[in-house]
Amino acid sequence: MRTAQVTFRPAGVTATVPLESTLLDAARQAGVSINAVCGGKGKCGKCAARLVNGLVSPAAPGEEDLLTPAQLEQGLVLLCQRLVLGDAVVETLPAPERETGSARATCPTGGFPCEPHVIKTRHDLTPPSLTDQTADLDRLLAGLPSPVKVDIALAARVPPVLRDAGFQVTSVVLDGVLLALEPGDTTESSYGLAVDIGTTTVAAYLADLGQGRVLASRSSANAQSAFGADVITRITHTMENPDGLAELRGLAVRTVDEIIAGLLAQTGVAADRVYLLTFAGNTVMSHLLLGIPPRHVAAAPFIPAFCRVMEGTAAQLGLRSLPGHVRFRTLPNVAGYVGADTVGVMLATGIRDLPGVRLAVDIGTNGEIILSREGRLYTCSTAAGPVFEGAGIRQGMRAETGAIYQVTMADGLAVRVIGDALPRGICGSGLIDAVAGLVRLAVVNRNGRLKKTGLPPGLPGDIAARIVSDGPGTRFVLSGGPPEISLTQGDISQLQLGKAAIRAGIEILLQEAGLDTADLEEIMLAGAFGSNLDPASLLAIGLLPPVNPAIVRPVGNAAGLGAVRALLSRGQFALASDLARRARHIELSAHHEFNRQFARWLVLDQPDPDLQARG
Amino acid sequence: MRTAQVTFRPAGVTATVPLESTLLDAARQAGVSINAVCGGKGKCGKCAARLVNGLVSPAAPGEEDLLTPAQLEQGLVLLCQRLVLGDAVVETLPAPERETGSARATCPTGGFPCEPHVIKTRHDLTPPSLTDQTADLDRLLAGLPSPVKVDIALAARVPPVLRDAGFQVTSVVLDGVLLALEPGDTTESSYGLAVDIGTTTVAAYLADLGQGRVLASRSSANAQSAFGADVITRITHTMENPDGLAELRGLAVRTVDEIIAGLLAQTGVAADRVYLLTFAGNTVMSHLLLGIPPRHVAAAPFIPAFCRVMEGTAAQLGLRSLPGHVRFRTLPNVAGYVGADTVGVMLATGIRDLPGVRLAVDIGTNGEIILSREGRLYTCSTAAGPVFEGAGIRQGMRAETGAIYQVTMADGLAVRVIGDALPRGICGSGLIDAVAGLVRLAVVNRNGRLKKTGLPPGLPGDIAARIVSDGPGTRFVLSGGPPEISLTQGDISQLQLGKAAIRAGIEILLQEAGLDTADLEEIMLAGAFGSNLDPASLLAIGLLPPVNPAIVRPVGNAAGLGAVRALLSRGQFALASDLARRARHIELSAHHEFNRQFARWLVLDQPDPDLQARG
Repeated sequence: MRTAQVTFRPAGVTATVPLESTLLDAARQAGVSINAVCGGKGKCGKCAARLVNGLVSPAAPGEEDLLTPAQLEQGLVLLCQRLVLGDAVVETLPAPERETGSARATCPTGGFPCEPHVIKTRHDLTPPSLTDQTADLDRLLAGLPSPVKVDIALAARVPPVLRDAGFQVTSVVLDGVLLALEPGDTTESSYGLAVDIGTTTVAAYLADLGQGRVLASRSSANAQSAFGADVITRITHTMENPDGLAELRGLAVRTVDEIIAGLLAQTGVAADRVYLLTFAGNTVMSHLLLGIPPRHVAAAPFIPAFCRVMEGTAAQLGLRSLPGHVRFRTLPNVAGYVGADTVGVMLATGIRDLPGVRLAVDIGTNGEIILSREGRLYTCSTAAGPVFEGAGIRQGMRAETGAIYQVTMADGLAVRVIGDALPRGICGSGLIDAVAGLVRLAVVNRNGRLKKTGLPPGLPGDIAARIVSDGPGTRFVLSGGPPEISLTQGDISQLQLGKAAIRAGIEILLQEAGLDTADLEEIMLAGAFGSNLDPASLLAIGLLPPVNPAIVRPVGNAAGLGAVRALLSRGQFALASDLARRARHIELSAHHEFNRQFARWLVLDQPDPDLQARG
Repeated sequence: MRTAQVTFRPAGVTATVPLESTLLDAARQAGVSINAVCGGKGKCGKCAARLVNGLVSPAAPGEEDLLTPAQLEQGLVLLCQRLVLGDAVVETLPAPERETGSARATCPTGGFPCEPHVIKTRHDLTPPSLTDQTADLDRLLAGLPSPVKVDIALAARVPPVLRDAGFQVTSVVLDGVLLALEPGDTTESSYGLAVDIGTTTVAAYLADLGQGRVLASRSSANAQSAFGADVITRITHTMENPDGLAELRGLAVRTVDEIIAGLLAQTGVAADRVYLLTFAGNTVMSHLLLGIPPRHVAAAPFIPAFCRVMEGTAAQLGLRSLPGHVRFRTLPNVAGYVGADTVGVMLATGIRDLPGVRLAVDIGTNGEIILSREGRLYTCSTAAGPVFEGAGIRQGMRAETGAIYQVTMADGLAVRVIGDALPRGICGSGLIDAVAGLVRLAVVNRNGRLKKTGLPPGLPGDIAARIVSDGPGTRFVLSGGPPEISLTQGDISQLQLGKAAIRAGIEILLQEAGLDTADLEEIMLAGAFGSNLDPASLLAIGLLPPVNPAIVRPVGNAAGLGAVRALLSRGQFALASDLARRARHIELSAHHEFNRQFARWLVLDQPDPDLQARG
């Protein structure tokens, strides 16, 4: 097999790949972080990079359409569309800085319900003698209130630990299993980690299990993103490549390992004082982390291999940042597209125990919706598409440095840009704000048409001037640039599809519960994305039902906080299984009303004129 | 490092070893089975072999004393005493054939109490659909009455097994863990193995767990014998060699693997229909099998790492003959020298539940003794030395082909030889019979002196003619040979030491229980060795207290049968822990009476003249 070498700058790494591999394959092999949203299908344009030199295949049909004029001018190519025909050197674009103020990275303060999974017991043992020949392990375990299982590898270490420590030791027991035996009194020192594995971002929280307190949190991009932005693309990768599952599993584990290593370094907590991990994450992420093929989630009837709690050891996961005996437990899933992260939201919000009718919505590629009617839970998942992640939008991008994330039009147009940088594109929240503003000003009508003529009288001149049609269609300029950042008719249509999917899900849940909009007492917006949205904008475009904006409340990364609660309390962990089991999951794809509702909510306003006026 | 090659015939294997290794090291490395009773210390003479050619060190001092004249004539050398100085070829002696009729190898017939550990359940599942999206694993486990844990590796196989089998499957659950998922209905097919790991011999029983029936049994020499005949030598090996523990563990596992593979081949049972192993074995063998250092058992206060039941998987043991998920459980130990094998004897004999006062004795290098007084159990272990294994005896050998195993002197001397072969030596039972016969004829007096003069009047001429003193001492010729097989004064002294140790143990247990000899209603002889002894001989030499021979009963390999009972019944398994915990263990080395009792029972008869007359 003939091969070629592809070197990536600025990382300075080289991959040796068979000829006719794609440059994206080479980047993956080299471990270079590439945000291949579409999974390498030439659809998203996100894997653009500069070919410094070398022999690669010519531009693929349509490749240019995915690159901006500025990118074409810089000589960028799509890594997924170019085949390696000889040695090459590629310069990747600067890795965008993550928004650091996002809810995912914040460290919750204050206490949590604390009912430790891990029991540490101090033992002050009498050394054996001819008149007391009790075996070492039996001597140790006699000091524990209930029977405990001991792995043979640990049993082998008991005699030397006991003798080295003068028979003064601390045992660590989790769920009837002896996890460790430590010299001296270490009862004060007991840690665990709650990890939320999102499709895009992995967040982890290091907690003191004895004190019920989070010490630090950290997040990082899921390294699986090199194989696609959404779960379907990743499932497809596991089905089409013999090593695909192992590859994605390894990337998830690597991401988790890096975050944990960072948290341990940051706090000075020793790895051998960590005993338990809890994982939240959507159903597909849970499967990939555990190396369990998620293939049947991809197609109807969307069946996961497991929903129940899975458990095992750090060694089984392949984690290197922690001793192999550290135990992990996943929070349970509800269904193929309502995962442990949603159960985490239930735990963190306590939604089941709150009175009245409440809705929790996690807006994303898959929008997960929870409805509680006096403690009776309904869930659904709705395929909103990648619009909220900024994909499928001409100048869309994730909520990274340079993204327009807030747009107001009350006193002339004002935009806010992540990192206070020059605008490079627009992310989901910016798009929603912009469209909401244009709807309010009647520049966009309820069917989503961006008006070029027939503009409402009294429209501020500043706004009117931004409606431009010097190209193949009308666009609304958000920022003059360079580069110019603008909104197209196509972008608005994408948002309509996404918002209709979410709204249809909400309406069907209300209907299944025998309720209507007026019954809603609270709408919680979960997730980093949802927490950064302006409720007024969501109401203006009709993504949420017409309610008083005051009852719409962001709840941050509730999935991660749910994992923290399950980590710190056996009661909360048990509650998770109960919540997952009792939630009534409504499968929208099988719901007779879904298509009608979806079509109905494509319109960009609220049908109720009273409430609409408020927006 | 300079090396040399040593080739072993007839095995036809070659080891490459550093110069100045012993030939025994080379044999071990080559995997050639050598019975190095003393562990390679040049004390037992059992590793004799013929040096065909090659450069080795000259005879060590004393080496010749351990070889018979015939062996010296054949040019045999002791492998442990010769250093490799260049390439060499060695011819080992024919591996002695094991006595196949021994109790260890017999397959018990009939039923046992059956209360299966392993629960197989047939599932006839409804395939999932959009209206029933239950996850595969949750769907399966919903059909089980109680919660079950599932390893992630098995969870990954559930979706394909369910679909390939059309959702008609059988689950296998052991102690709340899902062990396997099998296509179709396999509820009729469920097997397990009970394994008794003796220091000398490993015996295993393959059982049908559903029917409570033993299908086949098999035994084989413990391959650890290459590192010494007794447990102390083996412990020493683990302490003196960094890899010693791993080495001995590997040999135990290899022995067990070979026996299991043989049993599976013999019965046609598929390895993946085996789910559970139970292990009996003395405390040190249990430690070595599990790879747990037994070092503190070697010296006072003789503390094992564990006595309680240990459990794990075939993979953890390193067994290759069975799937990695197969579970094992050890029977519990009582103390450092009263192991799971003794608990097996308790189970098999049901001694605790029998009325009255009963004794069970397993005669061996360590004699284990159980006394039951109306269900109250006392145990002790007594260091009898290797005499009963035929070691320490000038022409002693194990109970292998060519060993004189039975001696009668009633109508002139008659000997029986294992395998109906020419006699090559004398084993423990032959020694006991011979000495008992000579004591009865007053050729050996109560102090153990083999008379040369002052022989009793009326002694048959055939017997008198066998008392020979043409060498450095008087000897009694059992077989004229060649080779001549005879008994020396030293041999008789060795037997006195061994029998006094056992008898002292029995007397101390009786004393601790407030009993005396007359209270004994039964004496059970456990183990292959004990089962082949003539009770009359044991009584004649005073190894057993003076009782009616009719109450002395051989019970075969009760340790192995106890492991079978524990394998077939959860109740019996639980009982084992109760027996081990409740038995009152008397540590003889710390017992104020032991030395006095030991000295007292060195004499070779019974002090009670009435009973003595009967012997």
